[in-house]
Order: sequence, then structure tokens, then C-alpha cells
Amino acid sequence: MTEQSMVKQERAARTRESLIRSAAEIFDREGFAVASLTVISSLAGVSNGALHFHFSSKAALADAVQEEALTRLLAVTDAVPPLGTSRVQLLVDVTHGLAAALRTDAVLRAGFELCGEASRASQFDLRERWQRWVEETLKQADAEGELRPEVAAQDVVTAVVAATVGFEVLGARDAVWLSASTVTRFWRLLLPLLVRASLVAELEAEGTRVP
Amino acid sequence: MTEQSMVKQERAARTRESLIRSAAEIFDREGFAVASLTVISSLAGVSNGALHFHFSSKAALADAVQEEALTRLLAVTDAVPPLGTSRVQLLVDVTHGLAAALRTDAVLRAGFELCGEASRASQFDLRERWQRWVEETLKQADAEGELRPEVAAQDVVTAVVAATVGFEVLGARDAVWLSASTVTRFWRLLLPLLVRASLVAELEAEGTRVP
Repeated sequence: MTEQSMVKQERAARTRESLIRSAAEIFDREGFAVASLTVISSLAGVSNGALHFHFSSKAALADAVQEEALTRLLAVTDAVPPLGTSRVQLLVDVTHGLAAALRTDAVLRAGFELCGEASRASQFDLRERWQRWVEETLKQADAEGELRPEVAAQDVVTAVVAATVGFEVLGARDAVWLSASTVTRFWRLLLPLLVRASLVAELEAEGTRVP
Repeated sequence: MTEQSMVKQERAARTRESLIRSAAEIFDREGFAVASLTVISSLAGVSNGALHFHFSSKAALADAVQEEALTRLLAVTDAVPPLGTSRVQLLVDVTHGLAAALRTDAVLRAGFELCGEASRASQFDLRERWQRWVEETLKQADAEGELRPEVAAQDVVTAVVAATVGFEVLGARDAVWLSASTVTRFWRLLLPLLVRASLVAELEAEGTRVP
């Protein structure tokens, strides 16, 4: 590849990223259905033609936003925990990480919001992916003997997924729902119910990750 | 009033109701932003002109849907419980009632969904009204000594409101989130945590209201 074509390729990649970020911001602020491609390209500082070169339609742009949001969700869920971290503590930490990311990252926020968009079918369903991760993690916690014997892991999945999706949706209007203190209070309430008494004292509802 | 003008007035009221029902169905299915007034009036079996006689804009129609949805929410929350029902049991029963109503009632569903619509400000915020009712009820439960002393009523409010909004949002895509069994499993998990041991045995997670 010539130096010139490499420069061109890099520039194209940057334009694409910038369009995805701008689209996420406008989807997040105005909703997918009313978002205007002209506003998006102008926020990205490119022409309408450049937008159409990268994305054939608003739906294609929304798919790209969700794909990028999925990458960011996986960065939160798949971060390697310190050795010896219990599965339940990992769940607490990742919930905090997700809330923090939703507070600051419009791409992640738009990616989640697009799942609830009645006017389009989601190719990347972030809420479903989140649910699967919670399910998998609680199954492991159960297998490791971390959960109280009388607690059904699937009931915990239902409660945790519903509550976190609630935080996400309510947080779009009022950021306090995504604050560290809200997430901490949720876990402070739930932890004594979920885990064996000997483990409760070891767990930190406010999370153990350096923010 | 003449008999003729009474007939006219009744017909107008029926048309208005029918437009609200049709709008709710279309908002629920396609989303507020893309919903077409022509589709709504045709579903209601009236002309575009008749729609505009009753509602000056799509926003006015959305307000009317939310106002009607609020009436239906209040019918669920304000139903008088049998004498001697504990506040926590009332909360359980009403959550079941809300989920059942959301399963079957497109007006209530659309009213809640419109709260999350980025493209418009809600005049009637049903999620906020629901939150206030949960808050009030748990405050009473606390005052009656139903809650465990170590549980902070406000933490329960946070968890219950987030989870029920989660059920509502996830239920729009997959009705199982609004099923009686989902709500029952949620309460079966939470009740032992919330109330004094002596009360747990008396409470029914599946609700006590005749459906």
C-alpha cells in the first residue's frame, strides 16, 4: 500500500468513527426516529455525501452505533478481575462499571436505547447480551457455592436484569439513577439475601474496582 | 339540552375515546415519533378532519393518551384493599395488578412508553407517579413496623421502582417479563429481606387479589 492510500484509509476510519459518535449523541438526545442525517453529518463535520459513502441509511448507522456499543459493553463485562474475586463481587463491580459507562458514554447509552426502539428490529440486542452475561455469572456464583442454598439463581437474574435495565431507562431522564450511590444502595439491600452469611462481610456493595 | 345535541355529544365522546385507543395502539406498535395520524384516524374509523377536530397535533393526542393511562394507573394503585391487608402485601398485589394491566392494556403501555420518548417532554410522567406511589406505600409499611429495622425504606423504593420499570420496558419486547410468574419470583426473592420474619409467612408473593 502506498503512503497516500494509507493516509486516505486512516482518514476514512476517523470519519466513520466520528459519524458513529455524532449519530449516538443525536439518537440519545432526540431519539432514533426523529434524528436527522443532516444534523448528524454536520455534528461530525462532514458532508451528507461523506455520510452516505459510509452508511447507506439511518438504520445502517444505528446498527454501527449498536455494534460499537456492544464492543464497549464487552469491555466492561470482560475486564479481567483481580485474582480471587468472588463471582458475586464481580457482578457488583461490573454493574458499577456499566452504570459509570452509561453516565459518560453516549455511544453505549444510545446502543442500549436503540434496543427499545419500536420502529426498528435490533441486530445487536445489548439488553439481551447483558442478560446473558448476568445469567452466566450467577450460574458460576451458584456453582462456586457463593449463593445461599434457598436462593434460586434464576430469580436473582430476573431481579438484577430488570433493575439494571430500569436504572438505564430512568437514568436517561435523571442521572441520579445511574449514580454510584444508587447502585451501592441496590447491592447493600440485595447482598445479604443472595450470599452466605460468611461471605457478606467480605463483599463491598460500592464495588472494588478503581474507577 | 335537546335530545339531538345530547346524541351529538355522546358521539363526539365516543370518537374521542376511540382515537385515544387507536393512537395508543399505534404509538405502542410503531413508536410515537414515526406514528402517522392518518393511520391512527383510519384505525379509529374516522376522517383526518375528525381527528383534527378533537386533537390539534400528535403531541396533543399523546398527552390525551397519557392522561387516560394515568387514570388507569390510578385505578390499579387506588383500588381499596381488603380490611387488614398489610402495606407490603398491598405493594405486592398492586405490582401484580400493574403487570397484568400492562400485558393487556395498550393505553397504559403507551402511556408509560411515552415517558421515555426523547423527542417530547411528558406532561404526565407515569413512571414518576408510580415511583411516588411506591414511596408512599413503603413509608407507610415502615411506619406500621412491617419492615425489618435494618432495611432502609428508600433503598427498597429504588430497587422496586427500577425493577418494575425494567419489567415494563423489557415486557414491550418479550411479554414473559410481565407475567405473573416473573412478578411472583421477584417478590419471593425480596420479601424475606424486607419484612420481619413473623410477617413473611403471612405474605403471598403471588398476590392476593382475584385477577
